[in-house]
Amino acid sequence: MLVITESDPELPPPPLELIPADVEVVAVGATPTDEQLAAAQVVYIWDHRFADLGSLLRRAPKVRWVHAASVGVNRLLCPEIHDVVLTNSRGVFDIPIAEWVMAAVLSHTKGFTESWALQREHRWRHRMTGRLAGTRAAVVGTGSIGRAIAERLMRLDVDVTLVGRAAATDPQFGTVRASADLVLVAAEVDLLVLAAPLTTATTALVGAEVLTALGPNGFLVNVGRGPTVVETDLVDALHAGTIAGAALDVFEVEPLPEESCLWSMPNVFVSPHMSGDYIGFEGDMMAMFTSNLTRWLRGEPLHNIVDPTVGYVPS
Amino acid sequence: MLVITESDPELPPPPLELIPADVEVVAVGATPTDEQLAAAQVVYIWDHRFADLGSLLRRAPKVRWVHAASVGVNRLLCPEIHDVVLTNSRGVFDIPIAEWVMAAVLSHTKGFTESWALQREHRWRHRMTGRLAGTRAAVVGTGSIGRAIAERLMRLDVDVTLVGRAAATDPQFGTVRASADLVLVAAEVDLLVLAAPLTTATTALVGAEVLTALGPNGFLVNVGRGPTVVETDLVDALHAGTIAGAALDVFEVEPLPEESCLWSMPNVFVSPHMSGDYIGFEGDMMAMFTSNLTRWLRGEPLHNIVDPTVGYVPS
Repeated sequence: MLVITESDPELPPPPLELIPADVEVVAVGATPTDEQLAAAQVVYIWDHRFADLGSLLRRAPKVRWVHAASVGVNRLLCPEIHDVVLTNSRGVFDIPIAEWVMAAVLSHTKGFTESWALQREHRWRHRMTGRLAGTRAAVVGTGSIGRAIAERLMRLDVDVTLVGRAAATDPQFGTVRASADLVLVAAEVDLLVLAAPLTTATTALVGAEVLTALGPNGFLVNVGRGPTVVETDLVDALHAGTIAGAALDVFEVEPLPEESCLWSMPNVFVSPHMSGDYIGFEGDMMAMFTSNLTRWLRGEPLHNIVDPTVGYVPS
Repeated sequence: MLVITESDPELPPPPLELIPADVEVVAVGATPTDEQLAAAQVVYIWDHRFADLGSLLRRAPKVRWVHAASVGVNRLLCPEIHDVVLTNSRGVFDIPIAEWVMAAVLSHTKGFTESWALQREHRWRHRMTGRLAGTRAAVVGTGSIGRAIAERLMRLDVDVTLVGRAAATDPQFGTVRASADLVLVAAEVDLLVLAAPLTTATTALVGAEVLTALGPNGFLVNVGRGPTVVETDLVDALHAGTIAGAALDVFEVEPLPEESCLWSMPNVFVSPHMSGDYIGFEGDMMAMFTSNLTRWLRGEPLHNIVDPTVGYVPS
């Protein structure tokens, strides 16, 4: 098998020692040799920035399975993917991302951003803040991350509506609304959380109309993918007070360019695409892969198979 | 009845219109006249800074009931209080304070303070952060605020131990540890939350020894009263890295003096004694009083009677 890994200084290297010793592992950068490619049967994409899978697969005729060390796989979708099995790391980041969302929502509710700004000036200024319990939220994304967020919001007494590709009834969360109705849903909630994969249906899903519906007390959280939000519309809405604020872990362009005005808006929290990355995640992520690898070696069905026509693991 | 209220510009005035029309209400500042005092039967202390109850009661022979628009009543304890019934506003702030604690704990866990500092410099720097689920917390204070905090931490999968004046067994939270054992308890947890009233037993409860036991990954939250913590010991521990950080809503001296070094420590979150104060709290607080007032007028037992020998409502 091949492990595609660039030496990203921000992230730990893959703990290859966790792979069973009888599997031949070749760790390569983004540019494996023809010889390496010709021999590979399995490709593990550790580097989350890798986006050249199509040309790699054309040179690797024996590959039957590609596993991604991420949940979002939009960078890996290509015509060649339909000839192999693609699996992702769904599940590893669920609770960490849900906790990041709770932190963002509660910090906003309790006025922490303003408290931090006042602290820098050594200023004691008492204010009244809001309450989270009893508010209403919509979570866009019915995958395991969206569900973990929805569950934790509900544990803190928030009234939660899930939003998916199509309307449905969910055994845990009741009525799921269709993303085509997002303007209607946004008008009913205080909090809009985006935890959706990047697909044609979710690209530019949140623009001026949804933000206007969310309203001047509404708060937006995006832990999915940046292009789900029309960033110029969001900046306009934040400037105009169309919505109250936003906490963003993902952006149209990453890293967020230094000149982006999002950095300096007082009602915006900018986080560098790290909501799910917790200390020690690489071990859990590798364990998820080796568990699937054991199934593969035994000829058993794999877990977390992505449907390449939609770009995520169907529920 | 008398309502003691100073015009604190930080807080809303008492919504006196919610008091039944057949009750004669005299709203006074901190210095009522002898005539006002001689006629009063009930005193409602709206001003949370008022600390002169002893001399007021000596001049008000008909007063039988004093109600405080706060939970902590340490400023109101005096020899004269034993001749009247003292009630407090226990319950109003439970969930708002618990939500503030969740915000503080999650912000710390997910590295928000550093993210905010990086955002100010327009710097994109990915980091790994922690997880709250699976950590261990001790909550000092077995009143309704401490219990609300403990319950919400448990809802987010934190392993919680309650700490009270004496060891006990609680139907909801199991074994309650005695505050005399706080050094032992602190050594077992990642998070120490203080939500205790200020009493002789809780004054200076947390000093160098407890902080050392809490340890270099430990985080301290204080939403009770400032003097429960020996502030010089805390500053030393934060400087030395004896503990990881602290979120403080209360201080030995309030407002926190501008020259306090707590303001500018990167691992400290300073909040101006506002964790429980939510938009609209004055209505809920007055409703709690008028509910007790109805009982008083009917000669029924009052709710939330403070035991003046300990300074809080016994569970």
